[in-house]
Amino acid sequence: MISFESDYIEGAHPLILESFVKHNYDQVPGYGFDVFTAHATELIRDAAGCSDADVYFLVGGTQTNQVVIDTMLQPYEGVVAPETGHIAVHEAGAVEYTGHKILTVPSHDGKMDAKELRALVKGFYDDQNHEHMVFPGLIFLTFPTELGTIYTKKELQEIRAVADEFKLPVYVDGARLGYGLMSSECDLTFRELAELVDVFYIGGTKVGALCGEAVVFKKGFMPAHFATRVKQHGAMIAKGRLLSQQFETLFTDNLYFDIASHAIRLADKLKAGFAAKGYEFYIDSPTNQQFFIFSKEETEYLAKEFRFSFWEKLDEERTVYRFVTSWATKEENVDRLLAYLPEHRS
Amino acid sequence: MISFESDYIEGAHPLILESFVKHNYDQVPGYGFDVFTAHATELIRDAAGCSDADVYFLVGGTQTNQVVIDTMLQPYEGVVAPETGHIAVHEAGAVEYTGHKILTVPSHDGKMDAKELRALVKGFYDDQNHEHMVFPGLIFLTFPTELGTIYTKKELQEIRAVADEFKLPVYVDGARLGYGLMSSECDLTFRELAELVDVFYIGGTKVGALCGEAVVFKKGFMPAHFATRVKQHGAMIAKGRLLSQQFETLFTDNLYFDIASHAIRLADKLKAGFAAKGYEFYIDSPTNQQFFIFSKEETEYLAKEFRFSFWEKLDEERTVYRFVTSWATKEENVDRLLAYLPEHRS
Amino acid sequence: MISFESDYIEGAHPLILESFVKHNYDQVPGYGFDVFTAHATELIRDAAGCSDADVYFLVGGTQTNQVVIDTMLQPYEGVVAPETGHIAVHEAGAVEYTGHKILTVPSHDGKMDAKELRALVKGFYDDQNHEHMVFPGLIFLTFPTELGTIYTKKELQEIRAVADEFKLPVYVDGARLGYGLMSSECDLTFRELAELVDVFYIGGTKVGALCGEAVVFKKGFMPAHFATRVKQHGAMIAKGRLLSQQFETLFTDNLYFDIASHAIRLADKLKAGFAAKGYEFYIDSPTNQQFFIFSKEETEYLAKEFRFSFWEKLDEERTVYRFVTSWATKEENVDRLLAYLPEHRS
Amino acid sequence: MISFESDYIEGAHPLILESFVKHNYDQVPGYGFDVFTAHATELIRDAAGCSDADVYFLVGGTQTNQVVIDTMLQPYEGVVAPETGHIAVHEAGAVEYTGHKILTVPSHDGKMDAKELRALVKGFYDDQNHEHMVFPGLIFLTFPTELGTIYTKKELQEIRAVADEFKLPVYVDGARLGYGLMSSECDLTFRELAELVDVFYIGGTKVGALCGEAVVFKKGFMPAHFATRVKQHGAMIAKGRLLSQQFETLFTDNLYFDIASHAIRLADKLKAGFAAKGYEFYIDSPTNQQFFIFSKEETEYLAKEFRFSFWEKLDEERTVYRFVTSWATKEENVDRLLAYLPEHRS
Repeated sequence: MISFESDYIEGAHPLILESFVKHNYDQVPGYGFDVFTAHATELIRDAAGCSDADVYFLVGGTQTNQVVIDTMLQPYEGVVAPETGHIAVHEAGAVEYTGHKILTVPSHDGKMDAKELRALVKGFYDDQNHEHMVFPGLIFLTFPTELGTIYTKKELQEIRAVADEFKLPVYVDGARLGYGLMSSECDLTFRELAELVDVFYIGGTKVGALCGEAVVFKKGFMPAHFATRVKQHGAMIAKGRLLSQQFETLFTDNLYFDIASHAIRLADKLKAGFAAKGYEFYIDSPTNQQFFIFSKEETEYLAKEFRFSFWEKLDEERTVYRFVTSWATKEENVDRLLAYLPEHRS
Repeated sequence: MISFESDYIEGAHPLILESFVKHNYDQVPGYGFDVFTAHATELIRDAAGCSDADVYFLVGGTQTNQVVIDTMLQPYEGVVAPETGHIAVHEAGAVEYTGHKILTVPSHDGKMDAKELRALVKGFYDDQNHEHMVFPGLIFLTFPTELGTIYTKKELQEIRAVADEFKLPVYVDGARLGYGLMSSECDLTFRELAELVDVFYIGGTKVGALCGEAVVFKKGFMPAHFATRVKQHGAMIAKGRLLSQQFETLFTDNLYFDIASHAIRLADKLKAGFAAKGYEFYIDSPTNQQFFIFSKEETEYLAKEFRFSFWEKLDEERTVYRFVTSWATKEENVDRLLAYLPEHRS
Repeated sequence: MISFESDYIEGAHPLILESFVKHNYDQVPGYGFDVFTAHATELIRDAAGCSDADVYFLVGGTQTNQVVIDTMLQPYEGVVAPETGHIAVHEAGAVEYTGHKILTVPSHDGKMDAKELRALVKGFYDDQNHEHMVFPGLIFLTFPTELGTIYTKKELQEIRAVADEFKLPVYVDGARLGYGLMSSECDLTFRELAELVDVFYIGGTKVGALCGEAVVFKKGFMPAHFATRVKQHGAMIAKGRLLSQQFETLFTDNLYFDIASHAIRLADKLKAGFAAKGYEFYIDSPTNQQFFIFSKEETEYLAKEFRFSFWEKLDEERTVYRFVTSWATKEENVDRLLAYLPEHRS
Repeated sequence: MISFESDYIEGAHPLILESFVKHNYDQVPGYGFDVFTAHATELIRDAAGCSDADVYFLVGGTQTNQVVIDTMLQPYEGVVAPETGHIAVHEAGAVEYTGHKILTVPSHDGKMDAKELRALVKGFYDDQNHEHMVFPGLIFLTFPTELGTIYTKKELQEIRAVADEFKLPVYVDGARLGYGLMSSECDLTFRELAELVDVFYIGGTKVGALCGEAVVFKKGFMPAHFATRVKQHGAMIAKGRLLSQQFETLFTDNLYFDIASHAIRLADKLKAGFAAKGYEFYIDSPTNQQFFIFSKEETEYLAKEFRFSFWEKLDEERTVYRFVTSWATKEENVDRLLAYLPEHRS
């Protein structure tokens, strides 16, 4: 049984495991004071073009969102996010657990619209009772979004303009950052993205690592005593090397982007193959998550040989399923799937 | 430079890395629904003699203490711990962050005394205003303690008796559990320890793993919707295999206990060697953490060739340093240290 | 200058002040163990027809919502509310501060719709990843709503049915409860309302008291150790008499409902008067809050002699203002306002 | 039955009730924007000699401690308090509920010692792992203490010096402030006390008000958006007049201090009377709380005619009881008690 369920079903890129083996008996200090952390930090700063950024490695995506959002906000502030944002739906209330409200704007295929963002923030300041309301304190967006879509440079510039107008920092959840940047439809480089936002995290777990996300705080944006707050959240690990060795590997010789490109190429192939056989898309995703619509019969037939994720029921007849490629996807498996795929009958 | 600073300065036991490599491309579901988690759970249940326990894998020690304590307590309850307990001192207030008070009892070389524990709990119930106080809701102890000491079976039985009298669950932080159980002075088997308490965690990070702690909830003690609460704490990772593969390895063929025994044998050798040269111990530790007292000259001399941890200044002349052995410690390095060690001059 | 800004601009009903004076030197225990609390509890149980309910007196509305919602929810649960609910907008994130998410359903003139409520709750249980989501744990509604509207008996029965289907308790914010129940359009008695819900609070602050809200927990719904949790929230006051003496007065000889009726009669008169002069209503409110639409000129003219609250800008020309009557409103002031009011020109 | 149980068993000073009656129908804005708040603020600034202080009125003592401590601390900080401090014992964990640890120093008859305070703070900064610890962020003390004792000017100056050395603000819980300042043993004026600390609250509930505490933030010490945070804590009330009218009355014509003096005179008389009959004191309190030691027989005999509070069991024979005078205590009742009191037999 071949699975296209998600981008976290395999282990880690082999070069990461090689690094573990090679340096296993190196004795290094704990808590991020190791040489790997220093080196990985340099590599990331260089790739992002932020030579004076602070970089901090955390274990997982929800943890990263929770810690970054909680520590960047003042206690009386909330975070603005699209209503489909991962933090607003599938993180079990991890942001609210830290005492902060999520202020939602409508979602357009997973993305927020700068005008609607502005309306929310301006509406807050225009309200004569705004001292009785949660202050907008941070703008959250995902790149690519939970629906696989990506913001254009222009869209990000418009969001940036709102952020500047109201002096709000912009934070990007980049759980699948590589897949977004390597999309053929992406009109931004990594450095251009980094330029337009204030804080972002580079997802490792879904892009080749066993675990780990690298948070990049541009100059002045890392909260005071951040390490203490990470510890307070239970998010600090003793063997910081576990995270930094992985990012050192991923940011050596362009590995992170090369393996993301591989996934995008196979996602494009998958998409083209499904389109050629007449399948409808739930959304037109240019990244490694593809959403196809199947009838019951099609679902049953495909499930005999392949695994994929239920996404949403459209109506009695039609259901949306998600297929995901990753750094680990083998082209032969994509080919096998497309060969097995029947013509779609509407 | 050879380091005895801590038991988290090397990577992971080689068999763990072998397992990573071997199963790297196995496609398994995320979030702990993988075969490794099922298998590791069985192995741990068997080793602990708790066939109906719930086992949950988390990433690190502070995280584990935070999540377990917060979820086991009612919102109006606090946790009783010795005043030197890790949660009370070196976890940056991670328990208080979740809204719970730590009710402290005196520390006797790191251990709580059952009589003093009983006095605190009874004092609470005797107070006519106890509805204005934090209810004791859980007993926390470390095994071995932060000072390397271990509870005797009798001491744990006495604590158990207090727990039963007041219907309080007992939770054991076993960050270094293996090193405690393998101590020559330990009069408890793993199963006997498990029998005497309600919830405990088996430390992986310090006993051979890259990260990971296995929480064992005896029947009925796992909080409702525990997975959701783990997620809410930002403590769930997508690739659960990272944790479970490590524990599967550690609990296959007695590896966890064998590597702990190795560390204990070398700690005993270190201790005997320092004693033979006339050094004083800050505390008489029977486990893998040893605390020696040096003069300034001794410190400077040793620091030329070895690394070890500052613990505490005793007075103007004397300082306590910690030396730690682990699963990774090489006997030749212990021998080298002892050969280099001068006679102590008081 | 006569003010119609809100129902909390005057002090307390004179009978309350009389009670303060009369019992001022009575020595009674603190923290709610006084005779007034016992008596007020009996009077409220009797009025609501809940002889076995628990009644608890708190100081203000946001506090009451915060304490009740936080203590009724499990830590992994959130509260379902209309998106215009006071807790969702104008309580500065007081619910999120306690760690709970507010799950919003659309607002129809301030009210939730049972079908949309059901869709949200059912959608949660249908989601295969719902362990990664916030569990719906309580249904929150206001009676009357923030927009002055009231639920019909049928609407509440439909919400009750959803609550029963999913075993969710229903909690009613009754900050202006009296004004809702005394509305000529209300088809529910107090006892019928109490019958249909599980927990509700009877607003005092806006209905004749200086401060104070009485929470009624029907049998079995008061959270364990509620007093301790109230204290933990900083919401317990030493002189419980301050609250209970007021409610004792309000629930003696039907005072609470009589003074609410007075306010409703004057609100109806106001509404009829504005309608007769051709003014538009922003919303057709049957309770003590009325929302009128004025041009700039009308606003300026009225503001010379009267005070009223800005509510919302409709467009460049038209703005919504709120006029509120209360237990303290004098009929002569309503008459003066209507006499002063010019014909509306569209 | 005459009660000496506490200073919160009667209502309010009659002049407060008179003010309520007189201004009952004055229409004033809510949420503290009323004229009474402005006037009371001026009166308090003047009495304290802090013309540029911010003054904020809250309802009760635990609420005040919770809100002030939480908002003055950074999220990674804790508050330093004596281990007998009210916040550390009898506030049901209200401070920890907001996520902050209480760092305790030993209690000397309720007071902290500047040297021990300094040792704790310095110990924190000397610890090489202090980034893993809770930062001391505020110094908390009560004046008078929970045991009725008061700090001397010299003691406060020593604490001030530590505060200055480590740049820590000093906050005083003045739940019974008037009784402390009017003690014959107090060597500080109100202005001198205000001069030595940064933030303090003037207790109303126990000194003549029905409820209410006035927090005084010296210039620059009020946290940003304090009103929003008060609201977020559920601590804001709609009718702010309830609090400010009371403080306006208390700080007019020296009323607050005059009624405190009255209580102190009667406490002194009580103390002298008990001493004259040979009773032992549990503590030598110079304020309105007195702690006497009785045998079982004495207790039973006194309890026939008077009510007083159990404090603590000393041994099988002897128990400590608390007798409290207040603004409302009648001299004839003190006389009656002393007349009834038998000679103590040891």
